[in-house]
Amino acid sequence: MVTLSEVAKRAHVTAATVSNVLRNREKVRPETADRVLKAIADLGYRPNLNARALAEGRSSTLALMLSNIANPFYPEFVSAAERAARKAGYFLMVCNTDDDAEVGRAYLNQIAGTLADGVLVMNTDIKFNELCASATHSAPILLAMWEHPETPPALPCIAVDFAHAGALAARHLLELGHREIGLLIGDGCGGLQDARSNGFRAVMREAGIEADAAAVLQIRDSIDAGYAACMQLMASRPHLTAIFATNDLLAIGAAQALITLGRAVPNDVSVIGITDIQLAHQVHPALTTVAIQTPAVAQLSIESLIRLIQTPEQQPSMVLGPPPQLIVRASTGPRRMN
Amino acid sequence: MVTLSEVAKRAHVTAATVSNVLRNREKVRPETADRVLKAIADLGYRPNLNARALAEGRSSTLALMLSNIANPFYPEFVSAAERAARKAGYFLMVCNTDDDAEVGRAYLNQIAGTLADGVLVMNTDIKFNELCASATHSAPILLAMWEHPETPPALPCIAVDFAHAGALAARHLLELGHREIGLLIGDGCGGLQDARSNGFRAVMREAGIEADAAAVLQIRDSIDAGYAACMQLMASRPHLTAIFATNDLLAIGAAQALITLGRAVPNDVSVIGITDIQLAHQVHPALTTVAIQTPAVAQLSIESLIRLIQTPEQQPSMVLGPPPQLIVRASTGPRRMN
Repeated sequence: MVTLSEVAKRAHVTAATVSNVLRNREKVRPETADRVLKAIADLGYRPNLNARALAEGRSSTLALMLSNIANPFYPEFVSAAERAARKAGYFLMVCNTDDDAEVGRAYLNQIAGTLADGVLVMNTDIKFNELCASATHSAPILLAMWEHPETPPALPCIAVDFAHAGALAARHLLELGHREIGLLIGDGCGGLQDARSNGFRAVMREAGIEADAAAVLQIRDSIDAGYAACMQLMASRPHLTAIFATNDLLAIGAAQALITLGRAVPNDVSVIGITDIQLAHQVHPALTTVAIQTPAVAQLSIESLIRLIQTPEQQPSMVLGPPPQLIVRASTGPRRMN
Repeated sequence: MVTLSEVAKRAHVTAATVSNVLRNREKVRPETADRVLKAIADLGYRPNLNARALAEGRSSTLALMLSNIANPFYPEFVSAAERAARKAGYFLMVCNTDDDAEVGRAYLNQIAGTLADGVLVMNTDIKFNELCASATHSAPILLAMWEHPETPPALPCIAVDFAHAGALAARHLLELGHREIGLLIGDGCGGLQDARSNGFRAVMREAGIEADAAAVLQIRDSIDAGYAACMQLMASRPHLTAIFATNDLLAIGAAQALITLGRAVPNDVSVIGITDIQLAHQVHPALTTVAIQTPAVAQLSIESLIRLIQTPEQQPSMVLGPPPQLIVRASTGPRRMN
């Protein structure tokens, strides 16, 4: 790697002059500056950004720490976050903690305040007091996709009203006449998706319907898990006319299980999810779901993190993301009359 | 952020002593070292890694630059690469260039040799001479998933024999009796997947079968594009009994189009892809495909990049990844006899 000294030597100037040319051109005579710039070009010298970041106290880099990049929701969030960061002049590094709190802690120690100016944390297993300590001593930390707006965490966050998402799903199924409904509750990265299922159940309860305990399964977030759980559910509760899943992966797996069992979707059984990942409109039948507007939430998260870095005193502790929206596609229909 | 000076002040020592405690403990008397460590703990001081990386000439961080994180192949590669990096004591930062060569160039300038010790580049649109210049002047660059082992690039790479993958798919369809086959050739991140289709066509040609020009479509890598292309193909060539797609996303979209058209998969039409992404076994019918063994290739890529950083002179310019393997699932079957 070419050093500043080599550039200085080739341009017959001191290292300080090269540094001046790079940082503050008016201090250097134009002929000298030209000679330095030519030496930089000839040698392919690249200013050391670590050194520059140290000197300026900033690195123009944000980090996004997430628990499981293999879950398709995260890449969609990453794409939108990366675009928003770039638009604001920041780079975005993604760190995948692989659902392991130890790994998350190690990344945080490595990047916060050193490689990155701020960290966006999604669905971590790291305890809040550790995150708070890190945010106090190193770089700002923002939690993205906080699922419980009614109980703000001790750190700044972008919250999404997931209970409302569950409520929208419940109202949709009720309007279609469904009463016997199976619940698949995701228990994946970041814990049980209970805000979603509680929102769903609250609306059902208002309509006089209590969930049948045997028709509720808590499972990991994946298509495979949704498939297996739906098989199990339909074996014990064949009269169910609808399945509500707290995320799209589970719902997609459930729809495939129903098709395998020879139950038409939605004519025999309706299926609805939450999130609206890309796959939701790509499967057949296309999935009815409640969109949490991932790109908008990602953009809001990046913008808030940058504000937190630039003007920490002005930042509200919790910002509520755009409201979830029902997206009706082909996987839900009126309850079949026997 | 707590500084080294504040630690020194609290421990009643000089900054140099704090630095000695952090780097080379035997130079400092045990009582003094204890006092410094206590001050570090009390203040929550974290050694500035930029400074340490500068001092040691290394940052223990690798970067992975990829073109489109929204394509499910990449998150699977990232997961495996991250695990391999961590096992070897390196962090992995992921940079998503969003299919934009300008963005890739900016990331490379930002990270190579400064934030990262080495860069793994996948399917870039950046020209080779630029990558070579960057590799010469800053940090080692390794190309992952090089599709043309017969023509090694000017940079170190991990190659995968994609022509062989195409040949395996062709042999499988021939053995099942298929003769009228449609080709969907991906033209996504990193350009046309022609090694795969050429390998397929070479085997077909040996069997005396030339591809019907109208039954070959070049399309972007996505489920949606595969769906639309298969609809178009079956409208103009209803006699096709099999579809070969150069990647799984296209194949999954094609299978869904066939089901929508009322053509049974595989009884009426067989479908085969290449890659073996997770989704391939999760869709119904599960997809027959040629596995390129993504986790093994990711691991090999990380290990080779680390060797390139540590012992640049010993690194062979091209390493061939494990051979592709046919995975027979439910989407292919014998040609239907009319």
